[in-house]
Amino acid sequence: MENTVANAEKYFGQFCTLMASYARKTAKLRDKSDLLVKQLIDYANTENPELRSTMKNFAEELAKVQDYRQAEVERLEMKVVEPLKRYGVQLKQTQAEIKRFNKVRNNEIKQLEKLERLRQKSPSDRHTLSQAESNVHKASVDASRTTQQLEETIDEFQKQKLKDIQKIFSDFVTIEMVFHAKALEVYSSAFQNLDNYDFERDMEDFRAKIHIASGNYDARPMSATHPSSTLPWSANSQSVRSTLQRQEDSEEDSEENIVQDFSNPEYAQIRR
Amino acid sequence: MENTVANAEKYFGQFCTLMASYARKTAKLRDKSDLLVKQLIDYANTENPELRSTMKNFAEELAKVQDYRQAEVERLEMKVVEPLKRYGVQLKQTQAEIKRFNKVRNNEIKQLEKLERLRQKSPSDRHTLSQAESNVHKASVDASRTTQQLEETIDEFQKQKLKDIQKIFSDFVTIEMVFHAKALEVYSSAFQNLDNYDFERDMEDFRAKIHIASGNYDARPMSATHPSSTLPWSANSQSVRSTLQRQEDSEEDSEENIVQDFSNPEYAQIRR
Repeated sequence: MENTVANAEKYFGQFCTLMASYARKTAKLRDKSDLLVKQLIDYANTENPELRSTMKNFAEELAKVQDYRQAEVERLEMKVVEPLKRYGVQLKQTQAEIKRFNKVRNNEIKQLEKLERLRQKSPSDRHTLSQAESNVHKASVDASRTTQQLEETIDEFQKQKLKDIQKIFSDFVTIEMVFHAKALEVYSSAFQNLDNYDFERDMEDFRAKIHIASGNYDARPMSATHPSSTLPWSANSQSVRSTLQRQEDSEEDSEENIVQDFSNPEYAQIRR
Repeated sequence: MENTVANAEKYFGQFCTLMASYARKTAKLRDKSDLLVKQLIDYANTENPELRSTMKNFAEELAKVQDYRQAEVERLEMKVVEPLKRYGVQLKQTQAEIKRFNKVRNNEIKQLEKLERLRQKSPSDRHTLSQAESNVHKASVDASRTTQQLEETIDEFQKQKLKDIQKIFSDFVTIEMVFHAKALEVYSSAFQNLDNYDFERDMEDFRAKIHIASGNYDARPMSATHPSSTLPWSANSQSVRSTLQRQEDSEEDSEENIVQDFSNPEYAQIRR
C-alpha cells in the first residue's frame, strides 16, 4: 500500500513537472509566432497593395492560431498542471494516514513481543502476563480499526487516482484536439488566402512603378545623346537631384505609412 | 530599386531567423513530449493490467504525435528555412548587380558635370568640349544599356520574390496543416482509448489484491484477540516477517518486470 502511494507520488510528480514544461514550451512557440506575425505586418506595409493585403491577411490568420495556442496553454495549466499539483497534496495526506497506521501497527507488534518475552522469562507471573495480554488485546483492536480505516483510505485513494488519471489525460487530449482542430481550420483559410494572391496583378503594379521611375530617369540620358540640345546640363542634374528627392520623399511616406498602420486598430485588434 | 532589395534582405533575413527559431521551439516541444512518453511507459509498468494497457496505449499515441512533429520540424527546415536561406544568397547577387549599375550611372553624372564645368570655364575650346561631349555620350550609352539590364534584373528579382513568398508561406501553412490534421487524428484515437478504460474492472482487481494482503494480515490480530490460543506468538511474528518478505519479493518481481518491459521490442518500436 505504501508502495502504491510512493509510486504514485513519484510518477505524478514527474507528470506535473513535464506537463508544466510542455505548457511552457508551447508558450515559447507562441511567442516566436507572435514575433513572426509582427514582422509579417511590418513587411506587408512595405509592399504593393496586392501583396500587402495577402501578407496582412496571412499575419492575421497566424495571429489567430497563436490566440488558440494561448488558450491551449491556459487550459493545460488549469485542467492538467493544476489538478496534478492538487493530486500531490492529496498524496501527502494519504501518506500521513499510512504513517499513522504504521505507528499503531508497530505498537501492536511491540506489545506482542513484550508478551512473548514475559512468557519466556516469568511464565508464572499471572498478573503481569494478564496485564500484557490486555495491552496486546487493546493494541490489536486499535490496529484492526486502523487497518479498516486505512483500507478505506487506500480504496478511496486508488479510486481517486484512477479517476484522476483518466480525467487529467482525457482533458489533456481534449485540449490538444481542440487546438489542432482550430489551427487546422485557420490554416485552411490562410492557405486559401495565399492561394488567391494575384501574382500577375502585383507584377503589373510593380512594372508600372518601375516604368515611371525609369521613364523619368531615361529622359536625361536620351537628351545627353544630343549634345546640340539647347537645354542646360545643369537642369538635367537638377532633375536627377529632384528624382532622388522624390525617392526620399516617397521613402518618408512609406515610413509614415508603417507608423500609421502600426497604430491602427486593425493591428491592435489581432495583438493580445 | 535598391530600397526594394534592401527591404527584402531585411525582412527575409528576419523571416529566416524566426522560422528557424520556430522549428527549434517545435523540436523542444517534441523533446518534452518524448520524456512524457517515457515516463508514461515507466508508470504503466507499475500498474494493474487494465490501467497498464490504457497508459501504454496512450503513451504510444503520444509518441505517434511526436513522430509527426519530428516530420513537421524536418519539413519546416527543408521547405521553409532552407529556401529562405537560398533566397538570401540570390539577394546578395542582385545587390552586386545594383552596385555595378550605380557605378556606371555615377560615371555618367561625373562626365555630365565635367562637361558642364568645361562649358563654364572654356566655352570656346571646341576640341576639349567635343571630347567631353563624346565621353558623356559613351557614358550615357553605357548607363542606358545597364539601366535596361538592371530593369530586367529587378523585374526578375521581384517576380522571384513574389513567387518565393507565396511558395514559402504556402509550404509553411501546408506543413502545419498536415501536422495538425495528423495530430487531431491520433488524439481522437487516444481519446477513445482513454474513454474505454474500465475503471470498475481495475478497482475490482485492486480490491482483490488488497483483500488478499489484508486477509493475511488480519489473521494475526484476530488470533491475538484470543490470548488463550496455544499458537506460539513467535510464529505470528514470523508470519508478519514472511508477509513482509513476500511483499519485498513481489516488489523485486515488479522491479524485474519494469526492466523487462523496457528492453522489450514494443517499447523500442515507438522510440525514434
